[in-house]
Amino acid sequence: MSNTEPARLRLIASCPDRIGIVARVATFLAERGASITEASQYDDPRSQTFFMRSEFVIPGGEETRTWLEAGFRPIARELGMTWRLADAHRRQRVVLLVSKFDHCLAYLLHRRKVGDLNLDVPCVISNHEDLRALVEWYGIPYHHVPVPADPAGKQAALEETARLIGEAQPDTIVLARYMQIFPPWLCERYRHRVINIHHSFLPSFVGGKPYHQAEERGVKLIGATCHYVTEELDAGPIIEQDVVRIRHSDTIKDMMRLGKDVENAVLSRGLRYHLEDRVIVHGNKTILFS
Amino acid sequence: MSNTEPARLRLIASCPDRIGIVARVATFLAERGASITEASQYDDPRSQTFFMRSEFVIPGGEETRTWLEAGFRPIARELGMTWRLADAHRRQRVVLLVSKFDHCLAYLLHRRKVGDLNLDVPCVISNHEDLRALVEWYGIPYHHVPVPADPAGKQAALEETARLIGEAQPDTIVLARYMQIFPPWLCERYRHRVINIHHSFLPSFVGGKPYHQAEERGVKLIGATCHYVTEELDAGPIIEQDVVRIRHSDTIKDMMRLGKDVENAVLSRGLRYHLEDRVIVHGNKTILFS
Amino acid sequence: MSNTEPARLRLIASCPDRIGIVARVATFLAERGASITEASQYDDPRSQTFFMRSEFVIPGGEETRTWLEAGFRPIARELGMTWRLADAHRRQRVVLLVSKFDHCLAYLLHRRKVGDLNLDVPCVISNHEDLRALVEWYGIPYHHVPVPADPAGKQAALEETARLIGEAQPDTIVLARYMQIFPPWLCERYRHRVINIHHSFLPSFVGGKPYHQAEERGVKLIGATCHYVTEELDAGPIIEQDVVRIRHSDTIKDMMRLGKDVENAVLSRGLRYHLEDRVIVHGNKTILFS
Amino acid sequence: MSNTEPARLRLIASCPDRIGIVARVATFLAERGASITEASQYDDPRSQTFFMRSEFVIPGGEETRTWLEAGFRPIARELGMTWRLADAHRRQRVVLLVSKFDHCLAYLLHRRKVGDLNLDVPCVISNHEDLRALVEWYGIPYHHVPVPADPAGKQAALEETARLIGEAQPDTIVLARYMQIFPPWLCERYRHRVINIHHSFLPSFVGGKPYHQAEERGVKLIGATCHYVTEELDAGPIIEQDVVRIRHSDTIKDMMRLGKDVENAVLSRGLRYHLEDRVIVHGNKTILFS
Repeated sequence: MSNTEPARLRLIASCPDRIGIVARVATFLAERGASITEASQYDDPRSQTFFMRSEFVIPGGEETRTWLEAGFRPIARELGMTWRLADAHRRQRVVLLVSKFDHCLAYLLHRRKVGDLNLDVPCVISNHEDLRALVEWYGIPYHHVPVPADPAGKQAALEETARLIGEAQPDTIVLARYMQIFPPWLCERYRHRVINIHHSFLPSFVGGKPYHQAEERGVKLIGATCHYVTEELDAGPIIEQDVVRIRHSDTIKDMMRLGKDVENAVLSRGLRYHLEDRVIVHGNKTILFS
Repeated sequence: MSNTEPARLRLIASCPDRIGIVARVATFLAERGASITEASQYDDPRSQTFFMRSEFVIPGGEETRTWLEAGFRPIARELGMTWRLADAHRRQRVVLLVSKFDHCLAYLLHRRKVGDLNLDVPCVISNHEDLRALVEWYGIPYHHVPVPADPAGKQAALEETARLIGEAQPDTIVLARYMQIFPPWLCERYRHRVINIHHSFLPSFVGGKPYHQAEERGVKLIGATCHYVTEELDAGPIIEQDVVRIRHSDTIKDMMRLGKDVENAVLSRGLRYHLEDRVIVHGNKTILFS
Repeated sequence: MSNTEPARLRLIASCPDRIGIVARVATFLAERGASITEASQYDDPRSQTFFMRSEFVIPGGEETRTWLEAGFRPIARELGMTWRLADAHRRQRVVLLVSKFDHCLAYLLHRRKVGDLNLDVPCVISNHEDLRALVEWYGIPYHHVPVPADPAGKQAALEETARLIGEAQPDTIVLARYMQIFPPWLCERYRHRVINIHHSFLPSFVGGKPYHQAEERGVKLIGATCHYVTEELDAGPIIEQDVVRIRHSDTIKDMMRLGKDVENAVLSRGLRYHLEDRVIVHGNKTILFS
Repeated sequence: MSNTEPARLRLIASCPDRIGIVARVATFLAERGASITEASQYDDPRSQTFFMRSEFVIPGGEETRTWLEAGFRPIARELGMTWRLADAHRRQRVVLLVSKFDHCLAYLLHRRKVGDLNLDVPCVISNHEDLRALVEWYGIPYHHVPVPADPAGKQAALEETARLIGEAQPDTIVLARYMQIFPPWLCERYRHRVINIHHSFLPSFVGGKPYHQAEERGVKLIGATCHYVTEELDAGPIIEQDVVRIRHSDTIKDMMRLGKDVENAVLSRGLRYHLEDRVIVHGNKTILFS
């Protein structure tokens, strides 16, 4: 049977700025019958780096992407490009890591089920047993990997976690309120593919108990930040942020409750930007073609 | 004397969607040495219309734009394009119309003076005498055109207003809280170049006294809307909107006071989008390449 | 066994304004050993009506509230007060009505389960069968009452719905995206106790398909409104509202997805205000002692 | 001549929590014919401290406040209260300190002129000459006190600044983008009466050039904070905060421009809360009876 539905692909690329990049890329695409549906370019004046994202529809079957990649490779080499072609119809495999707080997990699983997030969840990994019932109700495997306090036990737990992640062959890993430090070597393995939701408006209140820190400082708004995980704690490139107003009478418990709404919204927007290939990491910042 | 500073131009265009538009335009620009600094494209799936905005730097003197226009004309004709080339360095001439409330006027004049808004104000026209001192302090001519209640007097006042506007040869007209109906024939003459700030979150509270209407309905947020003026009152294409939270104890006077902050912010953001050629009107909506 | 935990009660009251109301009420409470933890008063200047909410801790067992009510009755009568004493520790019984969209339902059930909302759900009623599995996973009875198109069938369905609600003896009814008109006689029966979440920033986009209306009008922000249901569609007293920014490229499907975050947040904040007795209806508006 | 307009006063008080405080205060006021128009109380559970603000109308002439104070003194002593009675009709004297950025200054002077801020400005003090024309247009004295780099010169400049402030006998001092360190001994002299606007969402980006820091960190929202000045830089009790969304293409200049709208709104809301006696400092936080 012939494949009748056209491919929908995204070209995400960056390279040193020079004249004619868009012309080269667009001509390449046009000559192969690609119809661009949405495109953005940005030229960073400081680093003189050019960034682009083009989404296009192109006739042809499954091998279109491979064939297009082969054709584009020489152009990319000439322009000194970092690039990839992503299939917009393909569901990313996203492994979720959680601890005890389940609001982000519940939100993501629900949004996925009703079709608001285009992803597959091969498994959920947790250092606690608590959330098994919720996860299994969605028919998703749940791995409980306790993390002991002693260094050797901790190291073993991390390796087991890494092994389970590896087996799941994820495109992306989401720390949906995972209260363990994600080790640098694992960040490195999945570079710019590990997303964390931090329950503060970063860079305020890095580290543990940000709502306690917020209460201590007496801020009038609390927030949440969705960012890529890097070696340095809560310091990776920011994808999305938002805030909500609080009052002097709000206790830490109230902040946690109000904060959940913001965490859920920020994580679901940020993750979606990532899944739609709208985020390009540039140094410690992100270009966001929203 | 040779002109050493390169031109900075913006191409704003729309046309029926087809394959190869970006390639044609980008190749045209690249062949003439244009370096694209920022670009956005959008393909509206309903109307199958393609929209684009490209900002680029190009070597050459004053005649660059004319020369580029001549070269681009055949391409645009072939693609069925509505288009224009705008000079990013050129200051638009913006006529301001006001009545008695002066917060938007004061804000715009101040932002212009400190260089936050790249525009010239050839004159301010008002149906009241009140704001002369403020305007003249900025060294700007102030025309007082009283608008009588009787139809003949009103018509004469409108024509005098139209004459003064015409003399000022404006690119854009801003109704900075002008409490008179702007006549359809004048909208038509400056189509998509007349900007109004309405002190509600449209389409809520069309017409007069929106804060009174908001108080009556008991909303929990009030807002402001910056939009292009069309024949139908407060129904033109929206450029920018925002809101602020109010409380049950806020009186209409409080709303007016809180609303001023939002009106100022929304008008200055919206006007700036317009001046930077980031807004394309499409039916009764705007494409906003922010 | 003697009851050792003190009662935590809330006095919510309104009456014609006059000198000495707070003194009378506060003296009454102080003489009975009540320790006020949070209190707000507001005097509406237009209607010259006084509103108050006092939360206090008072020693004594289960009969404290009854005893306090009896003592307060003569004072309230003298002041012409509308009032009630609510037990802060008591969980309200909240019946949920839904159709096919399940995000608000899923959110509320999850928030209740983790203790963020202090309520019991005696049952969920739906005009569709779709959400049974979700509801029953939480151990909550699910009643499917199909609503036929013919008037007689519709009327019978409404009566069956009313019967099921009545059996559940609810304090509050939440229309968590229930896509049927809630009949006036049922509004009347549970006056100011039926809460709806409408997926627009009211009064914009009353009635069906508000995201379609928003897309049509080209607004730059979409919103959600939590309000009490009255006879007039989407016109009841507003409890809480919020908005989120959209872009020209957002489709109706995108708006629905982004809107869910706002609907969830607005409904959970609004419902919590209601459950904490922070909302007093005054005409068609609400006094919100947040 | 008899005084016919009644006094409008505000009692702001805090004391250790105990039963009967509201009763005592409200009874005292009622017995003297005071009609409460707005009141709020809050009991901080951690410190067991009670806070209250009552605004009331009371018949009588100029000596009402003195007479009321005398009567209230023994009650306050018994309850261990920190308190004051403020006259709502009285305009506070507010000295403004500025450097070169004039947006906050221009905003405050304009808002005062049109009656949105109930204050008198006895003088403006600046370490630069630049803003004299603007200030004098409003008929307000302008003092230029250059601040040299050498310690002795700096100290002399600070003392001259302090002398000028002292002469103006201010109720409140506003640092409207004053780019000099306000010395601890001067903070102490005007404790909880010196208000600063900081152009970041504190505690993020303390100190100089917060927009540069924001750009460096790659945040997706920038903000402004209005707070009381204490010895520790940018660490005093926060009165009001807000944020605005930015994009990856926004330069530091764009942030400064967008930030001005937020700074203006946050400062004018925060200052108004202060002028209306709605802010009570508690440790390093504020109780805000908005």
